[in-house]
Amino acid sequence: MPHDPPYLPAPGALLTDLYQLTMLQGYVERDMLDGAVFEFFARKPPACRNFYLAAGLEQVLDYLEQLHFTQGELDWLSGLGLFRPAFLDYLAGLRFSGEVQAMAEGTPFFADEPILRVVAPLPEAQLVESRLINLLHFQTLIASKAARLTLAASGRRLVDFGLRRAHGAEAGLLAARASYLAGFQASATVLAGAQFGIPLAGTMAHSFVQAHLDEAEAFEHFARSLPQSVLLLIDTYDTEAAARKVVELAPRLAAAGIRVQGVRLDSGDLGEHARRVRAILDRGGLGDATVFASGNLDEYEVRRLLAEGAPIDGFGVGTRLDTSSDAPYLDCVYKLQEYAGQPRRKRSEGKATWPGRKQVWRRYDDDGRCRGDSLMLEGETGEGQALIRPVMRDGRRLAPSPSLREVRAHALRQLDTLPAALRALEPAPPYPVAVSEALRDLAERADRLAGL
Amino acid sequence: MPHDPPYLPAPGALLTDLYQLTMLQGYVERDMLDGAVFEFFARKPPACRNFYLAAGLEQVLDYLEQLHFTQGELDWLSGLGLFRPAFLDYLAGLRFSGEVQAMAEGTPFFADEPILRVVAPLPEAQLVESRLINLLHFQTLIASKAARLTLAASGRRLVDFGLRRAHGAEAGLLAARASYLAGFQASATVLAGAQFGIPLAGTMAHSFVQAHLDEAEAFEHFARSLPQSVLLLIDTYDTEAAARKVVELAPRLAAAGIRVQGVRLDSGDLGEHARRVRAILDRGGLGDATVFASGNLDEYEVRRLLAEGAPIDGFGVGTRLDTSSDAPYLDCVYKLQEYAGQPRRKRSEGKATWPGRKQVWRRYDDDGRCRGDSLMLEGETGEGQALIRPVMRDGRRLAPSPSLREVRAHALRQLDTLPAALRALEPAPPYPVAVSEALRDLAERADRLAGL
Repeated sequence: MPHDPPYLPAPGALLTDLYQLTMLQGYVERDMLDGAVFEFFARKPPACRNFYLAAGLEQVLDYLEQLHFTQGELDWLSGLGLFRPAFLDYLAGLRFSGEVQAMAEGTPFFADEPILRVVAPLPEAQLVESRLINLLHFQTLIASKAARLTLAASGRRLVDFGLRRAHGAEAGLLAARASYLAGFQASATVLAGAQFGIPLAGTMAHSFVQAHLDEAEAFEHFARSLPQSVLLLIDTYDTEAAARKVVELAPRLAAAGIRVQGVRLDSGDLGEHARRVRAILDRGGLGDATVFASGNLDEYEVRRLLAEGAPIDGFGVGTRLDTSSDAPYLDCVYKLQEYAGQPRRKRSEGKATWPGRKQVWRRYDDDGRCRGDSLMLEGETGEGQALIRPVMRDGRRLAPSPSLREVRAHALRQLDTLPAALRALEPAPPYPVAVSEALRDLAERADRLAGL
Repeated sequence: MPHDPPYLPAPGALLTDLYQLTMLQGYVERDMLDGAVFEFFARKPPACRNFYLAAGLEQVLDYLEQLHFTQGELDWLSGLGLFRPAFLDYLAGLRFSGEVQAMAEGTPFFADEPILRVVAPLPEAQLVESRLINLLHFQTLIASKAARLTLAASGRRLVDFGLRRAHGAEAGLLAARASYLAGFQASATVLAGAQFGIPLAGTMAHSFVQAHLDEAEAFEHFARSLPQSVLLLIDTYDTEAAARKVVELAPRLAAAGIRVQGVRLDSGDLGEHARRVRAILDRGGLGDATVFASGNLDEYEVRRLLAEGAPIDGFGVGTRLDTSSDAPYLDCVYKLQEYAGQPRRKRSEGKATWPGRKQVWRRYDDDGRCRGDSLMLEGETGEGQALIRPVMRDGRRLAPSPSLREVRAHALRQLDTLPAALRALEPAPPYPVAVSEALRDLAERADRLAGL
């Protein structure tokens, strides 16, 4: 009987900031258990991002459904000397019992537009802040970067190679998910295949060639050991010489029913090597073997290589994708918008936010391109499509989540709706997001309530 | 009976790149099981780092000691259709049986200097590459950034606030460890306290103030709920007005035996607010209450604030630390240096490496400042101190690891040994690392062996 596929275990309730727990004790002791509304949104994107792509909702819903404190966690907290027994008893019984409304994963969004709202008793809605941001921020960060690569690659195969320089285990795993969601075809990370069903890809490392004293022998060994997927790394010593060795080897392999599927380049001038290698393969009767490139790639380099006509069929993108190296974080927050039925708003210098429960309406032109959004209060009716929808009630999903494949299809359709300027790699003029009168009025009311 | 402290569960053997497994099948089927030597090192650091600080060894040793494939993992791999039963049987029995030599965590190091060597049968040494880089890269990245903050803060309190924008769960947890190791005093991440014994710190969020309609009431509730640690966030609306509310509140709290320990600023001109708030607190009899600052901080901003004499007693550093935002990855690799007793060397364009088993010798002047390193072959005797030492044999630690507190003390002593130019934030001239004649000779021999 098959076992369950292997999963990355969840980190538990203590993966949070200390102040969540100290604030919770304050709320609980003052009986501040009324309904609170928090929203997650991002502020202005960096110049190297024309839009954000929403991702991470699925992991947030998992987290909320599973949230609880184990006895071991409570014992450990008790030992800190900060928390009173009655509060620890409260934590022992705590489950997330609230509602979530959210934008579907794979939807582009813009500054100040919420992609997720939590409506729950104040302590529950507060406690989840740290992990919820941790999950939504990272996947949205990677999906937003990966979407640019998808647009630059114009249909060429894209594979995530980034595990080793991703920031830890979960970053490697979730970068595979976020990049697949945003249009990548595969990942090299095995656990991403097991946990999310993401197609896996991989070739060989330089060490495989080096461990053999003879490069051609290394190629033959690899091909015979993995006849289903003969992709040979040819830049360990001399790229073109290695390509010729592949051509020499191919008939011997063909006699054994093994086809050379392709070669990988990983260093030097990738465009120039690709042209020379393509010619060697074509002359050698390997016209259907693909040329795959990797090594310090990002969306600009992919675009440059394709613009100069480099005969490259696919790209492995690692470090710069999995760390979103040109913008390694987004300015995103999870903010209290309402408590006990009253609007709330932060007014700190340079960090003011829009209060209340909000909806994002998106308008489209006749060609299906989006042409502007409206940030409105929930309940107002805008033009076009309302993007925030209920996904959780009473702490449980309202419906099974879409499959990752469906999310990916949605994301690809959504990228098609973006105006050309937003799909370009260069900074676009800001996408129009209008703020409704009713929302402006509510912000004033929140300020008056806070005595400002 | 107390439970074990909560831990982040390990990710299992499938957190690796697919090509490790396909190469392993090739090695195993060709009986290439001889001893291999791999070393982990970093290439030239970015201009914003004068040195690297080694970190992550402890997690690598945990990983190597625990490495095995579960039946569920093997079943899942079997379903991929890439691996033959004999190879899956080999994986079922695979444990790491090799040696590790390494530089102690908390030791500064430079380009091309290995900080870790694995000596093991080729498949074992190969398989561990992905996770080993993933662990060493990230903690070294964060420790190297945190060390700069430690140097800039000149003894002021530094607290890691970065969990929410760290790249996932493990990044948040290990950034807390790496920054503590490099001189931080505490972290806000609760799990880092449970797992590593790192001191925890935290204040309150804006939402706590906003959930109350009255700011002064919020302060009083918080203080009475957490009398051990009264740190009040005062920038939700008007920073100086809030500081005056703290002064008004203090006598009432004092009557209940509660002392206001300090305030936190999180927005605006932190230096200017700190001066005004300090004056308000001092005039109000709260001369021993501390002023703590946070909000978009990095080592440059900390230095600037201290240079202008801002009366700030401590800094909370989050996003820019936990993502190492100015250099979100290091150019580090894990490379085959020797197989079956013969040196190996990668010669790819721009990526050539030094072969063989290496030792790093560090020379010091009479004041204990390091003045140059030598990269030599293991067995050569250099001047000064040899930094690479045995830590694991037969897949087991040779001795219990030093405590994290000991590692931190070592790191702080090591930072003191750096020449002033390296301790500065500005780019320093390259630190001298000499390559021995014997190592140059071996590189030539490796090239001859590969027929170059």
